[in-house]
Amino acid sequence: MAKKTIIVFSGDYDRVMAAFIIANGAAAMDDEVTMFFTFWGLAALRKTDGVAAPDAKKSGLQKAFSAMLPKNAEKLGLSKFNFGGAGRSMMKRVMKAENVMTVAELIETAREQDIKLIACTMSMDVLGIGKEELIDGIEYAGVATYLGEADESNVNLFI
Amino acid sequence: MAKKTIIVFSGDYDRVMAAFIIANGAAAMDDEVTMFFTFWGLAALRKTDGVAAPDAKKSGLQKAFSAMLPKNAEKLGLSKFNFGGAGRSMMKRVMKAENVMTVAELIETAREQDIKLIACTMSMDVLGIGKEELIDGIEYAGVATYLGEADESNVNLFI
Amino acid sequence: MAKKTIIVFSGDYDRVMAAFIIANGAAAMDDEVTMFFTFWGLAALRKTDGVAAPDAKKSGLQKAFSAMLPKNAEKLGLSKFNFGGAGRSMMKRVMKAENVMTVAELIETAREQDIKLIACTMSMDVLGIGKEELIDGIEYAGVATYLGEADESNVNLFI
Repeated sequence: MAKKTIIVFSGDYDRVMAAFIIANGAAAMDDEVTMFFTFWGLAALRKTDGVAAPDAKKSGLQKAFSAMLPKNAEKLGLSKFNFGGAGRSMMKRVMKAENVMTVAELIETAREQDIKLIACTMSMDVLGIGKEELIDGIEYAGVATYLGEADESNVNLFI
Repeated sequence: MAKKTIIVFSGDYDRVMAAFIIANGAAAMDDEVTMFFTFWGLAALRKTDGVAAPDAKKSGLQKAFSAMLPKNAEKLGLSKFNFGGAGRSMMKRVMKAENVMTVAELIETAREQDIKLIACTMSMDVLGIGKEELIDGIEYAGVATYLGEADESNVNLFI
Repeated sequence: MAKKTIIVFSGDYDRVMAAFIIANGAAAMDDEVTMFFTFWGLAALRKTDGVAAPDAKKSGLQKAFSAMLPKNAEKLGLSKFNFGGAGRSMMKRVMKAENVMTVAELIETAREQDIKLIACTMSMDVLGIGKEELIDGIEYAGVATYLGEADESNVNLFI
């Protein structure tokens, strides 16, 4: 058994998918896995029920960033050939036909496998994302926590 | 001697070039190197002779993805300033003047140095890429194989 | 104490910021950190005083690449929502309100903490970037130097 960490910086559907496939694969092999979500990657942790977050405490700029960010994991765009979401829909249809899990399903599996999901608090401040917007059962921390986990891991990826 | 793994997720000419320069450099220092090609990175492994793959078994969506993907390594675009391929051509001209190898030449060197090239089978299914479209002498595997190699390596990169 | 290496390939403001936050965090925990700047990441090391580099020795193509590259770290664009620089300005205003350091400040801190900054000489040749364009006190090297550092490090990231 060895530890693994993955920084999920990207908010692209395909990259987030790759991150969770690696993480779930490692957890299935009994590795302890920590995923650290920062910047655009935070969008993958947004609640899927679409409840709007209370914007009261956000500045105008934070509201703007928050509005531009995808509403939840299944609304993320592809890094290539997204075409305003059409590319993602297309890919999801092929994935279904090929029995490949969606990102929402991969996140569910990650939680069932006790993968540690950490939201980067500094990025949350910069992008104006509140805790009430993110899924339950995750942790909140900064770069020192990430580095502590990385020091104990034998595989560390930045996605 | 130590092992190295590189996941080539990106299909950008410049990023694929960086991946092979690192891989070839490590192999030249007697490291054992495994490159795992997934998603857009698979385009780098497409045959350069331009023979169209038999599309018979592909669904309509897979044919569409397949058609959008670059035809081979030298047709990949730059991650920045690509301008429909003009940026890449420009960069390749400077590379030639500065005696820097093209991606096709870097791949050739990687094969001469026995770098293990693995195509991710799950991504092949999603993007509708058949084995007959990819260069010979590569391996086919999934995330478990990647994780096995990564566990034995002291440097693991995601590009 | 352990060593860390970060390859800064990307020239996006947000990604370069993430790279320096990780690097500075590790250095603050007494790690020895090496950052290797290659391709678009080189733009982050350009001098901030805006002095134009002598273009005399550059070919026409190198001049064109050089002209397209951001003038210095604070002119880098965001990887998402950049809108011709408006997104970056917006993010920098939120960062100031939240007391988050700019990339220029992060670079200054990195230098104070003796983080080793290496510019990739091969990329400099391809993009036509001369030493006189880059900030003082950095080192110049190639992939072999990077690999030597990575072999001694327990965390190696590609950003």
